[in-house]
Amino acid sequence: MNDISRDEVFGRIAIAQNNMIDFGIDALFICTEAEFFYFTGFRTQFWQSPARPWFLVIPAKKSPIAIIPEIGLHLFKTCGFKQVITWPSPRPRDEGISDLIKILKKFHSIGLSMGPESSLRMPLNDLLMLQSQVGSEWRDATPIIRKQRMIKSKNEIKFIKKICNIGGLAFSKVPKFASSGDSLISISKQFTKKLLDFGADYVPYLAVAAGHAGYCDIISPPNEKKVETGDILILDTGATFKGYFCDFDRNFSFGKPNKDIAEAYRLAWIATENAISYAKPGMAASQLFDIMNKTIGSDNSSVGRFGHGLGIQLTEWPSVCSHDHTTLMPGMVITIEPSVEFGKNFIMVHEENIIITDTGAEILTLRAPSNIEII
Amino acid sequence: MNDISRDEVFGRIAIAQNNMIDFGIDALFICTEAEFFYFTGFRTQFWQSPARPWFLVIPAKKSPIAIIPEIGLHLFKTCGFKQVITWPSPRPRDEGISDLIKILKKFHSIGLSMGPESSLRMPLNDLLMLQSQVGSEWRDATPIIRKQRMIKSKNEIKFIKKICNIGGLAFSKVPKFASSGDSLISISKQFTKKLLDFGADYVPYLAVAAGHAGYCDIISPPNEKKVETGDILILDTGATFKGYFCDFDRNFSFGKPNKDIAEAYRLAWIATENAISYAKPGMAASQLFDIMNKTIGSDNSSVGRFGHGLGIQLTEWPSVCSHDHTTLMPGMVITIEPSVEFGKNFIMVHEENIIITDTGAEILTLRAPSNIEII
Repeated sequence: MNDISRDEVFGRIAIAQNNMIDFGIDALFICTEAEFFYFTGFRTQFWQSPARPWFLVIPAKKSPIAIIPEIGLHLFKTCGFKQVITWPSPRPRDEGISDLIKILKKFHSIGLSMGPESSLRMPLNDLLMLQSQVGSEWRDATPIIRKQRMIKSKNEIKFIKKICNIGGLAFSKVPKFASSGDSLISISKQFTKKLLDFGADYVPYLAVAAGHAGYCDIISPPNEKKVETGDILILDTGATFKGYFCDFDRNFSFGKPNKDIAEAYRLAWIATENAISYAKPGMAASQLFDIMNKTIGSDNSSVGRFGHGLGIQLTEWPSVCSHDHTTLMPGMVITIEPSVEFGKNFIMVHEENIIITDTGAEILTLRAPSNIEII
Repeated sequence: MNDISRDEVFGRIAIAQNNMIDFGIDALFICTEAEFFYFTGFRTQFWQSPARPWFLVIPAKKSPIAIIPEIGLHLFKTCGFKQVITWPSPRPRDEGISDLIKILKKFHSIGLSMGPESSLRMPLNDLLMLQSQVGSEWRDATPIIRKQRMIKSKNEIKFIKKICNIGGLAFSKVPKFASSGDSLISISKQFTKKLLDFGADYVPYLAVAAGHAGYCDIISPPNEKKVETGDILILDTGATFKGYFCDFDRNFSFGKPNKDIAEAYRLAWIATENAISYAKPGMAASQLFDIMNKTIGSDNSSVGRFGHGLGIQLTEWPSVCSHDHTTLMPGMVITIEPSVEFGKNFIMVHEENIIITDTGAEILTLRAPSNIEII
C-alpha cells in the first residue's frame, strides 16, 4: 500500500529520535492521524470513526512500538514495524491503555503534542488515567514535531507538486463547465469530479462562495444559490494526493467585473507576486506577511494571516502573520494567501502555494492570471 | 445556509440544558466538530484546518455563547446565536482562552466530553491553562451528550434516509461501470462520482478491497490493484448529506463465486436478516450482537463489533457488541455489520443501516441481494 517508503518512514523516526535526545525527551507518544501517518506511512480514512484510538510510541533510543486496534493489523503489516501490539477495540474500559502503561512506564519523560494547532485524538479520561498510572513527566512535543514536519522531503514535495498541478488543471476547466444559472452545489460537484479525474485521491476541503459584486466569506460549503451575471465566484480547495494537500483558490467574474472588483483582484494578485518574488530562506514568516500587508495597505485588510504551512494537513505551521517569526527554510511549503477588503464588506482572497528553495521560492501552483478571469 | 432549523438547534440546546440540570452540570463546554455542528447547525469543512479552535458554552440556565475565530463570524451569523465572541485567530498566545476564562469562571461545574469515542479538538496546553484559571469542577459530559445524540430527530432521520438511498443508488451502478481489469482507484472514483451525482454532498469514507477468492481487510484506501475474474470486491462507504452519514457496504463477485464465498456471503446476509427482523426497542445492543453471533457461530468470527450508531459521525454510540448493554430506543440509527471469517484469512463483511421504530426496526438501505451479486 505504502506511498511513503519504509526507508523514508524510518528515516523520519531517526530524525525525531535525534531531536528528542536534544530536547530531553525519552519517548514520543503519538495519537493523531497526521502524526501517525507521518511516522508510519499508514494511510486510511478509518480515522473518520472516532470509536478506536491508534497509538505510536517512539523511544529515543529504541525501536518504535505501534499499539493499534486489531481491525487495523492486516493493513498495518505493510508498514514494516517489528513491534505491533493490538487489542480488540472498541473496548471502552481499556482502550489500549493497559498496554500503553506497560510500555510508557519505562520512560522518565514523555513527549506529547500539546501546543498550538495540536489536538488530542483519544478520550481525555484515558489520557488522564494513563498519565496517573505511568507517573512520568509529560512534556509538550509540539516544538520538535513542528520543526521536523515543516521541512518537506523530496517525496513529500513531489506529492504536493502533483496535487497542486491537479488542482490547477481542475481550475482551468471551471470556465468550461460553469455558467450563469448553475448552483454552487452543482459547480462544486463538477469541480470535485474534475479534481478526481485529473488524479486527486480525495477532496477533503472545498469552500465555495459567490455574490453580486463580491463575496463575504471563504469558509462556506456550497449551497443552492445560483450564480448570475455580475457575480464573483471563488472556489478554494484542499485536495489530496497520497495523503498530501494542495490549498489554493481561484476567482471568477461572471461578466465584466466592476472597477472595484478588478482593482481588489489586482491588489491581491500583486501582493502574491511580491510575496513569491521576495520569499527566500532566512526570512521570517512575519516578513512575508509584512510584504503583502504593505502592498495591500492596512486600510484594505484586517485579516491577520496571509498564508500558512501545507502538507499532511490543509494548514500547518508556520503562520504567515505578524506574530510568527519562524525562519523560512529550504523545503518549507507555504501558502501565499492575501485578502483584500473592498466595497460593502466584500473580500477578495487569492492564494498560491510555494516552496522555499535554497535561494528563493518556487511556485507550485499554475499561476493565476494577473487580472480576474471572466466567464 | 442552515439545513437544521434554528428551532431544532435551540430545541437540542434546551434538551441538553434539562439533562445538565439532572446531571448536576452548570455549563457544557463544546470544542469538537460533531458537537459544535449538533448544537449550532453550523457546517463547514474549515475544521480541516487545525489552526483555529471553535468553542460553544451552553449554560444550564442561560443562553448559549459561541466563542469562535473572527474568520467564521460572517457564516456563523446565519445560526441565530445572540451571544457570539470572536478573536483574531490564529493567536497562539491566547487562542480564545482569555474570553473562555471570563465566561466559564461563573460556573461551579463544567461538563466536557472526556469519555469513550470522544476527543479534544483544541491544544491540551490550552485546556490545562483554562482549567487552572477557571478553577471549577470539570466533569465528563459524555453520558448526557451520548444519551441525547443517540436518538435522532425527524430531520436527522430524513437526512440519513436520503443519504442511505443515495448510497444504494450508487451501489446499484457498480455492476454497470466496474469490470475486470479496472483498478481499485478507478472503481472508487467512479463510485464517488455516482454518489455525488445521486446527491451526496461529500464522501469522507470509502474503503475498497478486492482479492482472489476473498479480501482480508476492510479499512484500506483503494490502490492500483486491478480487479480480475475470481476476485471478490467490497466497497464500504460513509457518504454524507447535509452533515449526516450513511455507512454501508456491498460485495461483488467477479465471475461465479466458489462455494466458500457463496456460503460466507449467505451467512453474513442471514445474520443481517435476523438482526433486522429481531431488532426492537427495549432490546440491548449486546442482544443484537448475540443474534448475529449465534447465526454466524463463534468458529466463524472473532470480530467483536457487529455494528454501531450512525449520524453526524461515521460511527457513533452504541456499539453492537457483547459488552455494550445500551437499551435500543425508537429513533436510534444503527448499522448492522456482521463479519464472517472463511478460507485463508478472508472475511466477508455485510452491512445495512436501520432505524429502531416504536415496534421494531425499519431498514434504511436498499436491501442487498440474498446471494452475492455477480459481475
